[in-house]
Amino acid sequence: MGYSESQIEGRNAVLEAFRSGKTIDKIYVLDGCQDGPVLTIKREAKKNDCLIKYVAKERLDQLSQTGKHQGVIAIAAAYEYAELEDIMKAAKESGRAPFLFFLDGIEDPHNLGAIIRTAYQAGAHGVVIPKNRAVGLTPTVARTSAGALNYLPVARVTNLVQTIESLKKEEMWFACADMDGDVMYKANLTGSIGLVIGSEGEGVSRLVKEKCDYKVSIPMIGKLDSLNASVAAGVLAYEIVRQRDYQNPKLS
Amino acid sequence: MGYSESQIEGRNAVLEAFRSGKTIDKIYVLDGCQDGPVLTIKREAKKNDCLIKYVAKERLDQLSQTGKHQGVIAIAAAYEYAELEDIMKAAKESGRAPFLFFLDGIEDPHNLGAIIRTAYQAGAHGVVIPKNRAVGLTPTVARTSAGALNYLPVARVTNLVQTIESLKKEEMWFACADMDGDVMYKANLTGSIGLVIGSEGEGVSRLVKEKCDYKVSIPMIGKLDSLNASVAAGVLAYEIVRQRDYQNPKLS
Repeated sequence: MGYSESQIEGRNAVLEAFRSGKTIDKIYVLDGCQDGPVLTIKREAKKNDCLIKYVAKERLDQLSQTGKHQGVIAIAAAYEYAELEDIMKAAKESGRAPFLFFLDGIEDPHNLGAIIRTAYQAGAHGVVIPKNRAVGLTPTVARTSAGALNYLPVARVTNLVQTIESLKKEEMWFACADMDGDVMYKANLTGSIGLVIGSEGEGVSRLVKEKCDYKVSIPMIGKLDSLNASVAAGVLAYEIVRQRDYQNPKLS
Repeated sequence: MGYSESQIEGRNAVLEAFRSGKTIDKIYVLDGCQDGPVLTIKREAKKNDCLIKYVAKERLDQLSQTGKHQGVIAIAAAYEYAELEDIMKAAKESGRAPFLFFLDGIEDPHNLGAIIRTAYQAGAHGVVIPKNRAVGLTPTVARTSAGALNYLPVARVTNLVQTIESLKKEEMWFACADMDGDVMYKANLTGSIGLVIGSEGEGVSRLVKEKCDYKVSIPMIGKLDSLNASVAAGVLAYEIVRQRDYQNPKLS
């Protein structure tokens, strides 16, 4: 998992990036552009399950760092994504009950980086993020993870709801952060667990929440609704650590 | 005493400023912006007899100090620093054992804002920061505190070591975050407590650490040394909340 430039501009450069097997999070393409090289790039993008955003020339000009985008800019992942199957396999072989983070729409790269760092330090086996409406593994994420991205696998999935459904068949239990849930100290968070954290503004989306086995809350003594997303993830993660490794005698 | 910054940016921060009863001289609002949160802010402004100026995006961008105005900037009475004596007095009158945060050199305004938000939500009575080598109450801090700065007093002191010494005479106990300390779940963090959090790079300074009664650590299962400072503060703060309010039966 090497570090690299995150933005690739120009037709040849983007096409080469796809052909070399580089992981591209998304491409920005000039809206309405139909010429040959651009169509080839779009074919490669679809083949690689990469998000395509059609934008106006002004937006491309604004995004461009080189001033020579030729109608296409690609955002490459700074790190390679892992496969969810591989994370689950490694978790099962680790001798500890699987512990995964599922991030439902974290858009701030500083929050994503801090959460990846926390997940790694709290002993999680991996992090799962959605392809859409969420930040990917950008250089800022890599930096704020303080190196955790070198150790902890991050998988990207198309549909978080379906992913949770299929993992429930593998005996994973899911707990999501929710203001109206049971206070986390009273929930049973031991065993194979997926911790679901919502976005800063919206929280966990309704469809994802409906799939969760537990809704757990962090006690809020002040009058605000919530904590910063990465702080909330840390507080919940360490309640899981406490219950797994330090709960003796067990609290009722 | 008073802080010279008087600008509040972003929808949540401005709305919370109104709701907390802060005096706002005027607000700048993006011309033509009609969405819900902005309409709510305009209602609050009218209710409070506050001047509303409708300006173009360019003007807001120019006024903005954070680059994240979200279409609204308020010019308010400055965030005043509180006096430590007043924080202690209010804490003692609150009917709950005093619980204060002491931040030893937090330089990142996002971390300071997130910690103030966490301190408020976790039921702390106030935050103490040093005058030197630390960020003050800037607009970025106000914004990332998500409004908590309107409710939670922050005091600034010249010498953190002397402050801790004098508060120990008032029966406060001090716990600092330290990698080599006892695991937090096993420490006794009930009673009147000062939670000391070090800077991101350096941790708690030696002189401050020597004054602390307890050194407590967060279990680190991954290979890195630490968590993000605001995440660590959150994890420790909620271990204090758990021991104060949810520990029944008491762990040995």
